[in-house]
Amino acid sequence: MIRVGIIGATGYAGGELVRLLLGHREAKICWYGSRSYIDKKYYEVYQNMFQIVDETCMDDNMEALADQVDVIFTATPQGLCASLINEEILSKTKVIDLSADFRIKEVKTYEEWYKIEHKAPQFIDEAVYGLCEINREQVKKARLVANPGCYPTCSTLAIYPVLKEGLIDPDTIIIDAKSGTSGAGRGAKLDNLFCEVNENIKAYGVGTHRHTPEIEEQLGYAAGRKIRLNFTPHLIPMNRGILITAYAALKKETTYEEVKAVYDQYYAKEKFVRVLDRDVAPQTKWVEGSNYVDVNFKIDPRTNRIIMMGAMDNLVKGAAGQAVQNMNLMFGIEESEGLCQVPMFP
Amino acid sequence: MIRVGIIGATGYAGGELVRLLLGHREAKICWYGSRSYIDKKYYEVYQNMFQIVDETCMDDNMEALADQVDVIFTATPQGLCASLINEEILSKTKVIDLSADFRIKEVKTYEEWYKIEHKAPQFIDEAVYGLCEINREQVKKARLVANPGCYPTCSTLAIYPVLKEGLIDPDTIIIDAKSGTSGAGRGAKLDNLFCEVNENIKAYGVGTHRHTPEIEEQLGYAAGRKIRLNFTPHLIPMNRGILITAYAALKKETTYEEVKAVYDQYYAKEKFVRVLDRDVAPQTKWVEGSNYVDVNFKIDPRTNRIIMMGAMDNLVKGAAGQAVQNMNLMFGIEESEGLCQVPMFP
Amino acid sequence: MIRVGIIGATGYAGGELVRLLLGHREAKICWYGSRSYIDKKYYEVYQNMFQIVDETCMDDNMEALADQVDVIFTATPQGLCASLINEEILSKTKVIDLSADFRIKEVKTYEEWYKIEHKAPQFIDEAVYGLCEINREQVKKARLVANPGCYPTCSTLAIYPVLKEGLIDPDTIIIDAKSGTSGAGRGAKLDNLFCEVNENIKAYGVGTHRHTPEIEEQLGYAAGRKIRLNFTPHLIPMNRGILITAYAALKKETTYEEVKAVYDQYYAKEKFVRVLDRDVAPQTKWVEGSNYVDVNFKIDPRTNRIIMMGAMDNLVKGAAGQAVQNMNLMFGIEESEGLCQVPMFP
Amino acid sequence: MIRVGIIGATGYAGGELVRLLLGHREAKICWYGSRSYIDKKYYEVYQNMFQIVDETCMDDNMEALADQVDVIFTATPQGLCASLINEEILSKTKVIDLSADFRIKEVKTYEEWYKIEHKAPQFIDEAVYGLCEINREQVKKARLVANPGCYPTCSTLAIYPVLKEGLIDPDTIIIDAKSGTSGAGRGAKLDNLFCEVNENIKAYGVGTHRHTPEIEEQLGYAAGRKIRLNFTPHLIPMNRGILITAYAALKKETTYEEVKAVYDQYYAKEKFVRVLDRDVAPQTKWVEGSNYVDVNFKIDPRTNRIIMMGAMDNLVKGAAGQAVQNMNLMFGIEESEGLCQVPMFP
Repeated sequence: MIRVGIIGATGYAGGELVRLLLGHREAKICWYGSRSYIDKKYYEVYQNMFQIVDETCMDDNMEALADQVDVIFTATPQGLCASLINEEILSKTKVIDLSADFRIKEVKTYEEWYKIEHKAPQFIDEAVYGLCEINREQVKKARLVANPGCYPTCSTLAIYPVLKEGLIDPDTIIIDAKSGTSGAGRGAKLDNLFCEVNENIKAYGVGTHRHTPEIEEQLGYAAGRKIRLNFTPHLIPMNRGILITAYAALKKETTYEEVKAVYDQYYAKEKFVRVLDRDVAPQTKWVEGSNYVDVNFKIDPRTNRIIMMGAMDNLVKGAAGQAVQNMNLMFGIEESEGLCQVPMFP
Repeated sequence: MIRVGIIGATGYAGGELVRLLLGHREAKICWYGSRSYIDKKYYEVYQNMFQIVDETCMDDNMEALADQVDVIFTATPQGLCASLINEEILSKTKVIDLSADFRIKEVKTYEEWYKIEHKAPQFIDEAVYGLCEINREQVKKARLVANPGCYPTCSTLAIYPVLKEGLIDPDTIIIDAKSGTSGAGRGAKLDNLFCEVNENIKAYGVGTHRHTPEIEEQLGYAAGRKIRLNFTPHLIPMNRGILITAYAALKKETTYEEVKAVYDQYYAKEKFVRVLDRDVAPQTKWVEGSNYVDVNFKIDPRTNRIIMMGAMDNLVKGAAGQAVQNMNLMFGIEESEGLCQVPMFP
Repeated sequence: MIRVGIIGATGYAGGELVRLLLGHREAKICWYGSRSYIDKKYYEVYQNMFQIVDETCMDDNMEALADQVDVIFTATPQGLCASLINEEILSKTKVIDLSADFRIKEVKTYEEWYKIEHKAPQFIDEAVYGLCEINREQVKKARLVANPGCYPTCSTLAIYPVLKEGLIDPDTIIIDAKSGTSGAGRGAKLDNLFCEVNENIKAYGVGTHRHTPEIEEQLGYAAGRKIRLNFTPHLIPMNRGILITAYAALKKETTYEEVKAVYDQYYAKEKFVRVLDRDVAPQTKWVEGSNYVDVNFKIDPRTNRIIMMGAMDNLVKGAAGQAVQNMNLMFGIEESEGLCQVPMFP
Repeated sequence: MIRVGIIGATGYAGGELVRLLLGHREAKICWYGSRSYIDKKYYEVYQNMFQIVDETCMDDNMEALADQVDVIFTATPQGLCASLINEEILSKTKVIDLSADFRIKEVKTYEEWYKIEHKAPQFIDEAVYGLCEINREQVKKARLVANPGCYPTCSTLAIYPVLKEGLIDPDTIIIDAKSGTSGAGRGAKLDNLFCEVNENIKAYGVGTHRHTPEIEEQLGYAAGRKIRLNFTPHLIPMNRGILITAYAALKKETTYEEVKAVYDQYYAKEKFVRVLDRDVAPQTKWVEGSNYVDVNFKIDPRTNRIIMMGAMDNLVKGAAGQAVQNMNLMFGIEESEGLCQVPMFP
């Protein structure tokens, strides 16, 4: 049985980790860390856990935790994991960081986009970017996994195959993303009030969203060189779900069948990436509550562009689900353990 | 392995049966019945099932089905199950009817409220009303279970203990109920369009809703005599969830502790009924996707009335989940098998 | 031209006052008071006002304001108006208070339910309860109007006629109310975050909501004696709208026509109260953005109870609209001036 | 007083026409045409109109109507207006067609994208494309106005200035659009049910949406040559509102100030197009219920692309509001008459 500690257990991603791990047959949560709710019953913070979780919230003491658990999930704001981690901790336990601290290989890029100093740059090289379908073998051997951001997960999986296979021009990629509001976290902010979000849609972080360099780095690996792209997220009046609609110029005339074959080559054996049937558009509702990413594409022969689409649950494959998937890989157990939820509709 | 057939597999309740049974370790769906989608792949109707269910929709042939399965779920409009069922079928297979056909013991009452002739009154006496927490022992022995309505499940469970123990005056019960829109089914009706339901609330079926006599019958068993009550449902702009707020006069001054003890007496050992802590109001979101019913109450000493509240997921405990719970009881397996989903929040 | 000052112009009710007064032909807003946003452009707080309102937010200086305007609206938290008001202010200007400070005639009741000391009890007697349809003549002569609460407005208007005419038993009244989330204000609180409210419903303030004594006082006037009732509000995932569903025992068998005649007697000439046709249930969407209250009722002969329903926009007739209606009465202009918005659907 | 007839008065756009025209001081609706509801009271179809509109729905008899009114609005499915119109009608009355029949100058293009034969191609040349801010002078003289589509209105207004002034490369335009569900009309279709739309987002009509050639034609006039672009609409769980996010390559390095000056040049004097302040993203909620289009842009120096955004209410500026604006121009009255609604928030 894998002993698990969670730091940041009372945010939305932390809550989702708890939900998923409660159904995991080989893991047991031993530490519900939450600086804001120390000594409070966890179910008082999340009443859905009443009579399911009886534990009390603990402080975020990573050193104490390292002695007690086999793996620590940090579902905390940027900077926290980097400020707490050290060699001793990593020598005792594995760490899966759901924040951005170890996702970006260039410290300078991280510091520019996140506007904070990186406190543990010495671990960046070692950290494995935990996009399981792409980096499966490295994840298996990792001590420290940087769990990918929600938008980067969906964007990268939707674009990776055609970029890697050279079908599209890397300089023409535009990603227009839409996310449910749980992605904004559980902080009490005016902008996230019901009446401000409901019956409304807006773009935010236009040209400046922090997931941009993360996507660029990952797609850069596919392209074999540095790339620059546009990424524009939008806030949608729904709880869960991310949809990305990406555009790129095809290098030459390409048929549906050719592109479909490329996607199938990468994903036919992947449980959690579903390449939909022709002309079926991904919908976030079709993956809600599950670890699936649904992808599809459409070629527009008029402009010779390809429109690539991906839909997933931002709290599952975009956060807690992928973190569990990484844990499974790191501990050598069935990759889908604890992640077989059928999407809930409606 | 229990072989299962579903008639009406493409309605919302049918879809939820499929979701739950796919996670059931001792049941296997052998027949996806759907008159409207015969020969269509099931996942084309519900894309969440893509790469999960490969079967094709079949006709609603109950006789053919009886030869092939151990249990038939009918998730169909009122009247269909009664028109198809017969002794031969019941001699071969068990039937769990999610419609109202066998819920009401008096044929006349059924026919008055539902405005249709009952085609199989000879089976009404035999049918067991499948409210598991109340009728567990009878369900275990049943061939034919009438799966309770969504509102009656939530209402009965919230009121039953205090009525049975004689704390409230049976003639003063008023139930004000609120339901998400999935309760209205998947039919393409103007009233259920997004723009008609969203940003809106209304009462419907005021004084005439068909669940009224069902609730009155069940609560009548608790009261030990016939009762009449008011039941008013409201349509809420959300997909899932039922909340009932019920009012009754206390027979005499009663303390919180006395009432709490009564609820605990009935539900402390029940996995799926959670009596919340003092002053914690049930919320539908806290039970979403799960088989739980959360109940609580408040005494108003100013009026000497008690306000009783219950929250559940109308598609789970209010339909498919309770149907699976009944199946488990009928087949002598663990009552909660396939029903251990942790509620999903947010 | 009536010169208007608003204290609390950046809350939701304050914002609605601005929206309505901008369309008023005989009033002009001279003071946008908002302690939180002093010196900020009003349109930076409410971007809908971009290029419409160019003014800057001012402090809440009631004395300075009294010298400059003909009427002050206070759309502020409980206690503020009472702490600022004095005889000199009232000698110079009229005051319409949207808070609860002057709604309840017994100081003790106010202080018990609101848990604050009343700072200006000497003005309570003078204050007129601004439910225009009931107290029109007194409002016309008032210096200080207590603008009714949202739930009390809808509840009182729906129940008043049948209670006043002695059709129902005052001791049997139960009000089950449902409100959109704008009623909770624009404060950044966890409970009002999109993800906490959306896809959810709950009761709140069960047995303790502060609007209870206000409703009891107003209906007490109709009954001709003190009454006690149950009032239970619920939070609904929509921005605007209040629906109340009220229950009471009819004193004797009564026909639809008799009750309808009573409602018509009170409301046939009222522009803003619409008694709907038989069996048409009020829906909040049908009044959104307007000053209408839609009411209707249903007699249940089985229980001899009457179900009374009312729907309105909580920010208009439940707050800013009624405040403007009161202003119109106080200044002797057309009662509906500035309030002729057609409800917006969908 | 302008006598107005509406054909298709019971669709969402028709209902919005009624709402707006009821507040218009120089127009009077004389004919509520609705083939589906003939002889039914209009307020029975739209209860918000109870005690406001007493008229009864009439048949869609355009010839009879032409004798009685000064202007006919056709808010009907594609093809209907073209099948009814003739020279005699146009000699008696003006026509504002809210369908696509007269928006596209090339019959072949219309027939290809709409898959129907055009029944009145002889009037296409005469018809004026009623995008008021661009074609104001021609609209003033028109007998027949093709009221623009919702997406084309928002897209064209957001992109037109920078394209016309040669700042962007016409071959690089990509429009990613998001619309509330009222744009899908009031037909009872499965895809538009509350439970299918709520908590969901999807792209639709990818590469094939009929508004594509309309946008291309209008932007082609700005570019001075034929253009091809990508247009992808998405369905959003909200009633009203369209947001478009458009991308294009800047021809050369350009500053914020240069681009802002271009937008101001076109829109500074336009009442209904608001160029927002720097870094303020348009939000649909800020224009709800009003005729405004809010536009803004962001330059991404990293990719040298410009992101252009526009937000409007699809039923007002995207349909009925613009139709009224066109009517005002055609009859020589104040362009904003009946269109001064302040946006409603929240």
